[in-house]
Amino acid sequence: MRMYDIIAKKRDGGTLTQEEIAFAVNGFAAGSIPDYQMSALMMAVYLRGMTATETAQLTAAMAYSGDMVDLSGIGGVKADKHSTGGVGDKTTLVAGPIVAACGVKVAKMSGRGLGHTGGTLDKIEAIPGCSVSLTQEAFFRQVNDIGIAVIGQTGNLAPADKKMYALRDVTATVSCIPLIASSIMSKKLASGADCILLDVKTGNGAFMKTLEDSIALAKAMVDIGEHNGRRTAALITDMDTPLGRNIGNSLEVIEAVETLRGKGPADLTEVCLSLASGMLWLAGRGGAAACRAMAEDALRSGAALAKLRAMVAAQGGDPAVIDDPSGFPAAAYEHDVVCMQDGWLYATDTEKIGIAAVLLGAGRETKESVIDPAAGIRLLKKAGDPVKKGDVLARLYAGDAAKFAAAEEKFHSALTFAARRPQLPALVLARVDKDGVTRF
Amino acid sequence: MRMYDIIAKKRDGGTLTQEEIAFAVNGFAAGSIPDYQMSALMMAVYLRGMTATETAQLTAAMAYSGDMVDLSGIGGVKADKHSTGGVGDKTTLVAGPIVAACGVKVAKMSGRGLGHTGGTLDKIEAIPGCSVSLTQEAFFRQVNDIGIAVIGQTGNLAPADKKMYALRDVTATVSCIPLIASSIMSKKLASGADCILLDVKTGNGAFMKTLEDSIALAKAMVDIGEHNGRRTAALITDMDTPLGRNIGNSLEVIEAVETLRGKGPADLTEVCLSLASGMLWLAGRGGAAACRAMAEDALRSGAALAKLRAMVAAQGGDPAVIDDPSGFPAAAYEHDVVCMQDGWLYATDTEKIGIAAVLLGAGRETKESVIDPAAGIRLLKKAGDPVKKGDVLARLYAGDAAKFAAAEEKFHSALTFAARRPQLPALVLARVDKDGVTRF
Repeated sequence: MRMYDIIAKKRDGGTLTQEEIAFAVNGFAAGSIPDYQMSALMMAVYLRGMTATETAQLTAAMAYSGDMVDLSGIGGVKADKHSTGGVGDKTTLVAGPIVAACGVKVAKMSGRGLGHTGGTLDKIEAIPGCSVSLTQEAFFRQVNDIGIAVIGQTGNLAPADKKMYALRDVTATVSCIPLIASSIMSKKLASGADCILLDVKTGNGAFMKTLEDSIALAKAMVDIGEHNGRRTAALITDMDTPLGRNIGNSLEVIEAVETLRGKGPADLTEVCLSLASGMLWLAGRGGAAACRAMAEDALRSGAALAKLRAMVAAQGGDPAVIDDPSGFPAAAYEHDVVCMQDGWLYATDTEKIGIAAVLLGAGRETKESVIDPAAGIRLLKKAGDPVKKGDVLARLYAGDAAKFAAAEEKFHSALTFAARRPQLPALVLARVDKDGVTRF
Repeated sequence: MRMYDIIAKKRDGGTLTQEEIAFAVNGFAAGSIPDYQMSALMMAVYLRGMTATETAQLTAAMAYSGDMVDLSGIGGVKADKHSTGGVGDKTTLVAGPIVAACGVKVAKMSGRGLGHTGGTLDKIEAIPGCSVSLTQEAFFRQVNDIGIAVIGQTGNLAPADKKMYALRDVTATVSCIPLIASSIMSKKLASGADCILLDVKTGNGAFMKTLEDSIALAKAMVDIGEHNGRRTAALITDMDTPLGRNIGNSLEVIEAVETLRGKGPADLTEVCLSLASGMLWLAGRGGAAACRAMAEDALRSGAALAKLRAMVAAQGGDPAVIDDPSGFPAAAYEHDVVCMQDGWLYATDTEKIGIAAVLLGAGRETKESVIDPAAGIRLLKKAGDPVKKGDVLARLYAGDAAKFAAAEEKFHSALTFAARRPQLPALVLARVDKDGVTRF
């Protein structure tokens, strides 16, 4: 088999076999296939596409290029969730405990934030004392004991994906659905869960800006998961505006706890219940309505909050802060962003709001940046709210008052005002599973 | 300017600017743009195409990456010709002297054979004593004195093309008309001639197998030449069967001399007159009919033969062999290929005949192979001839009798016989110039 022939076949619109895909991925990971051949193949895939079967086989080859986590040491069904990344997205900290409270295991490996979107690991590390580095033994024991653990990636997951992504990033072959889907799902397959619920964000703060692109990505990922023996579904959720009111690591944990207490913002509560219900449904806990009721019960009863508290304690954190947010270190400085006009806050450029939070120290500009867990933004007005001149639109938090000017300027640039109330999109716009697409 | 953006623009079907093209080509030639980015761009070009203007600009950038030969030291109009490569193609040795005899300068740099097609340099070196390595001063003086010189490439012509071709060769991006056309024409532009006549071979022995592909390549090359200020035209000539009867370096020189004596095969004579007329027309020597008459006169009068004799003498060769072919070293062994059936020689697989000649030692299997100038094939029957069992179809020549078995088997496999006379294609199938395509 020759890489040349594989490139030529895809260039001419052919369908690659499982053997050809594995040859390309394994050879590239091993270094026997050079960068310039893989970049030519990636461009051919970008322009010619891949069938669902090819995409599933590509994903499996990438997953099997490294460690395949074996979760069989954990009893019961293991459910995972993945978000394509948003601003103010703290859903793992709410949906995870709900699902665990309903008896489905959540053995989750999360990532860190980069760019304008946050990452779950950074949020967990904002909880005083809480660690995300567990041995596999401690990880398994914790999930068996209390039903949930959220840790950083262990082992060498999908190294072929890492190498391919780095190459795609410099050869203009990132924004291609089969390649995006296989990159995400290779790590999910390697992580070992039985069920995978995907939260595909859509809108101006998301990687996928349009509903149709988001649905296409969701379909590709669901196909990959199901083809590889994992029960997989996706919800398309709104990211035209930040989720909830808090952006920044401590602020988001505090909001997640409020939500688990039943006092969270309506949008965040609804998205978390939808995600948790979806995970329970995938795990075979009943029909959609039954799973929804189960999730609502776990929230209402406090069982889900108890799971978060137990998880924090098990991972070395101070569970007292879950009951009293004053235990989180406060930011040294606060600054109010004041409204300059009357009318409606018509729309927000969510990506710019995310960047404003990064400028305050809440996220990473480069992989080497150090996060300030107390930094961030609390939105007092959201898109759809009526506003008056002089209203406080948002409160900014930073460890250095010099950061406010640039962040406020970026924040202002994200806002559009109008004389009329906007029509806001639904929170959950569609659902994709192996039986097809349901639009709401 | 970033290579990433250039790749993305072409990926999305955009038209690159002259600055973008020059940035990519110069950066790649200089090593500041890595192979993997250029291979992604080449695949995007392969699948998205290039406009005529982009292709002309790409070619110019490749030409200007190295030496641009300045032929202004040679008086008068300089005409060049280029063949895309065929079997038995000795037209330069006939058309060049005809053109020179008509007063248009032929200052030609030729190439060597590789694979199943031959190269003019190898044929000239088959003439005892004849050199193809001249200093630029000697080259200019010879062309000024006698009107013609054919030598090997001097200087560093189009190094960007060389590097890009090597990359395309391993990334399945060779067979793309804008890239083939720019590769050929970059060297022609750098070689400095005022007029370029292209002989685009078509058929089973040619790089381009179909007439339509050949015309498309010819159009692309004519556009490039004209865009860059060179008078350029192309003839599409048949390569469904070898040109003339002789294949192999000494054998082809001998056949070229016979043709200059007016005793050559009809097909070779006709193609050479067409090419020479085309070169004279490009050089402004009159209308098509006047140029044809001029070429026929130069052949009939012996003036063209005198030019070849003078060129051989000037390049150190023995001009006596031009008048007496017994001066060429003979092959040590001959072997007749005998016909096994009655009927018509219906068709030949020209590439296989070329390979049979290579197996006899007439061509190179690799760049390092040493050519036997006396080796080759003399075709006693050609496609379209009636044959009888026992007829000698061809005579094979080699320095080692052990080579005959494989060559004869390959030769036989190239032949198709039938009970009826075949319809043969025209020798010159189309003509392409800046005013369009004329099909014959």
